[in-house]
Amino acid sequence: MAAEIVNPRSDSENRDASEQGGGAAPLESFDPAFALHRGGKMAVQATVPVRDKDDLSLAYTPGVAKVCSAIAEQPELVHDYTWKSSVVAVVTDGTAVLGLGDIGPEASLPVMEGKAILFKQFGGVDAVPLALNCTDVDEIVETVVRLAPSFGGINLEDISAPRCFEIERRLQERLDIPVFHDDQHGTAVVTLAALRNAARLSGRPLGDLRAVISGAGAAGVAIAKMLVEAGIGDVAVADRKGVVSRDREDLTPIKAELASFTNKAGISGTLESALAGADVFIGVSGGTVPEPAVASMAEGAFVFAMANPNPEVHPEVASKYAAVVATGRSDFPNQINNVLAFPGIFAGALQVRASRITEGMKLAAAEALASVVGDDLAADYVIPSPFDERVAPAVTAAVAAAARAEGVARR
Amino acid sequence: MAAEIVNPRSDSENRDASEQGGGAAPLESFDPAFALHRGGKMAVQATVPVRDKDDLSLAYTPGVAKVCSAIAEQPELVHDYTWKSSVVAVVTDGTAVLGLGDIGPEASLPVMEGKAILFKQFGGVDAVPLALNCTDVDEIVETVVRLAPSFGGINLEDISAPRCFEIERRLQERLDIPVFHDDQHGTAVVTLAALRNAARLSGRPLGDLRAVISGAGAAGVAIAKMLVEAGIGDVAVADRKGVVSRDREDLTPIKAELASFTNKAGISGTLESALAGADVFIGVSGGTVPEPAVASMAEGAFVFAMANPNPEVHPEVASKYAAVVATGRSDFPNQINNVLAFPGIFAGALQVRASRITEGMKLAAAEALASVVGDDLAADYVIPSPFDERVAPAVTAAVAAAARAEGVARR
Repeated sequence: MAAEIVNPRSDSENRDASEQGGGAAPLESFDPAFALHRGGKMAVQATVPVRDKDDLSLAYTPGVAKVCSAIAEQPELVHDYTWKSSVVAVVTDGTAVLGLGDIGPEASLPVMEGKAILFKQFGGVDAVPLALNCTDVDEIVETVVRLAPSFGGINLEDISAPRCFEIERRLQERLDIPVFHDDQHGTAVVTLAALRNAARLSGRPLGDLRAVISGAGAAGVAIAKMLVEAGIGDVAVADRKGVVSRDREDLTPIKAELASFTNKAGISGTLESALAGADVFIGVSGGTVPEPAVASMAEGAFVFAMANPNPEVHPEVASKYAAVVATGRSDFPNQINNVLAFPGIFAGALQVRASRITEGMKLAAAEALASVVGDDLAADYVIPSPFDERVAPAVTAAVAAAARAEGVARR
Repeated sequence: MAAEIVNPRSDSENRDASEQGGGAAPLESFDPAFALHRGGKMAVQATVPVRDKDDLSLAYTPGVAKVCSAIAEQPELVHDYTWKSSVVAVVTDGTAVLGLGDIGPEASLPVMEGKAILFKQFGGVDAVPLALNCTDVDEIVETVVRLAPSFGGINLEDISAPRCFEIERRLQERLDIPVFHDDQHGTAVVTLAALRNAARLSGRPLGDLRAVISGAGAAGVAIAKMLVEAGIGDVAVADRKGVVSRDREDLTPIKAELASFTNKAGISGTLESALAGADVFIGVSGGTVPEPAVASMAEGAFVFAMANPNPEVHPEVASKYAAVVATGRSDFPNQINNVLAFPGIFAGALQVRASRITEGMKLAAAEALASVVGDDLAADYVIPSPFDERVAPAVTAAVAAAARAEGVARR
C-alpha cells in the first residue's frame, strides 16, 4: 500500500534554498516544517514509458487517437483508459482551514497537498489539490461541475459552514461521481467507529446512550446525523448559544433541521447543563468544557474531546471521570483522525465506480474501522492507529461491498 | 531529467483486465495502445515521507498550520512552500482534439494525460489534465481564473479557433502566471527553429524568404505572427477559401487582423497560386497540396508539411523539388514536434516565476532549439530529435534568461 517516496526536486530545491538567502531561509531554520514543505509535498509521475519514439507513438500521437475515439463512442471507457477512476479532486475555497479559519486559497494549499498525499499513501488514491479563489456557492458549484469530467470523485475540504452543506448537496445532485465533504463525513465515520467500540467495551448498546455534541458546524451536524442513523438513544448538539432545540428562534435552516431529529429529550440551556447525566461527550468546537461539567456526566461516560491542538477538556482531566477518553491528537491514546476513513472510503467507491457515497457506505466504513480493533479492545484502544495497515483495506472492502449492495456501484 | 517510471496500479489493473472480460478486453487485443492506456498514464506521488506520526505532524497537522499562516501573511511564499511553482494545468474543453475535432472532455483526457507526462518527462514539470465540460468562452475563462491559485502556469490545449484566441487573451489579462496555448505558440516556436536552420543551411536570411502557410487556425495564425516577429520577408496565410488578404470580405476578426500584418505582396486567389515562386510552404491545415503546386515553388524551397498523420504533400514527393522537407511525423526526418518546445518553455518560465510568456521568451526558445543542431546541420537535420537530451535544458535556460531580460521574472 505504501507508495515509494521520491523527491525529484530535491537537488534543485536544495540549491534554491541556499542560493536564495532571502525570505525563506530564516523560516526554515526556525521550524523544520518549513524545510519539509520547500517545493511542496507532491509530484506527478508517468506510469507508462516515454523513452523513445515507439513509446511516444503509443502514449501520444498517433496511438492515443484510437483511445480517444473509443471513449467518444463509448463514454464509459473513460474509466478504463484514463486515470479518471483513480483520481480525486481535493477542492477548497480556503474559508475554514484547520483552526486558522478563512485564510484564502493560496494559504490553504499546504493542507490540500497534505490531504492529497494522505489519499495516496493510505488509500492508493491519486489526488489533486484545487484551491479556488471564489467563495460564492453558485460559483463553487459551477466550477466543480465543469471540472468533474477529469475526476473520479470530489473531496470537499475546509469550506466553511453553512455554505459547505449546500455546496455538497447541489454537487451531489448534479454529478454522477462521489462528492464527499470530509470535514463532515470523515469525522463522523471515525467518531462512530470509536463510539461503537467504546459501547462494546462497556457492554452497552448505542440505543442506551445519550450523547452531547459541542459544535454545530460541519463536523457536529454530520456526527449528529450519523449517530442518529446508527441508532443512538439521543443526541443533543450545542452551539455557542447553547443546546439546539426546537424552541430556539435564532436557528439557521441547517440548525432548524438539526433540531428536528436531535434532542428528543427537549433539553435547552447551556452545553454544561446538557452534560449532566450524559453518557457521551463529543467535542468538535474548539471551546472548553470545565471539569465540573465532565464530572457531572453519567458513570462510565465516554469523552471524545477532538478539538486540535487544544482538546475541549484535557484527556488527563477527562480520565478522572470517564471510562473512555479520545482526542484528535496523536500524542494521546484513541486519536480520532479522519485519515482512518477518507482514503479507504474513496478507494472503495472508486474501485466499484460508485456514483455516490451513501449513508450505508459510510456506516459500513465505520463498522469496518471499528472491527479492526477486534479482541484487543481496551479503554485506551477503541480506534486503530492511522498507521495500522489493516485499516484502509478493511474500509475499502466494506465500502465497495456496501456500494454494490446499495446499487450505486457501476462495476 | 527522465523521471523514474513506476506503475503503482499495475497489479490490480492487470487483474481487473482479465477479470472483467467484457468491453475492454477486445479493444486491447486489437491494438496495443489500449493495453498501454489501461488505468491511465499517470499518478500522483508524495515527495515527503508520511510513514509515522512524526512525519504526519510535520507534513500535516499540526506542523502544516505554521506554513499556512506564513503564506497567509506573505502570499508570495506560496511559491516556496507548495508545489504551485512546479505544476501546470493542462486545460481543454475537448473541442479540437488532435485531428478528431470536437470529441468532448472525457474523450480528450488520454491526450491531456499524454501531454502531462510529456511535461514531466521532458521538462521535469508537473502537470494536471483538466478537461472542462463547458465550451462557452466566459465560462472557460472564469473557471480557469478560479483554479489559478493552485497552479504555476496554464497550458491551454486543443481548444477550437477562434475561441482559443479570446480565451488566451482574456486569461493573460486576468492572471499573473503564464498562460500559453501550445497549439499556437509551441507549434510556432518549433516551426521557426526549423526555418531558421533551413535558412542557415541555404545561406539565406529570413528577410529574403516568402512563406505560404496553409491553415488559418490556431497554429497558422501563431506561426504567421511569429515569422513576422522574426523578420520573415513576407508570409501569406491561406484558409479553405484561399489566401487571406485585405480585399476579402468574409474575414473573421482574427483573420482580418492576420490580413493586416501578412501578405505584403497582396496575393489573392488559391493556395496553389500563392505557392508559385514561394520559398517556404508551411502546412498546418490537414488539406493536400498537389505535386504541381510544390513544383511551382522557388528553387531550393523549404516544405514543412506538418499535418498528422497525413502530410499535405508526401515527403518523398516534396523532396523532388524542395531543399529541406519537414513533417509532423516521427518516421521521416525533421519532425516538427511541440514536445521540443513546451516542456522547456514552461520549465524556464516556472524557474524564474515569470508572470507571463512574452514574445521575446518564445523567440529565445526558438533560437535555443535551433542552436542545438549546431554544426551537424543538414537537409535532413534542421531540427533536433524530441529525445535529444540537450533540448529541454537549452530551451529552459534561454527562456529563463529572456524572462529576466524582459522584466517578467519574479526571481
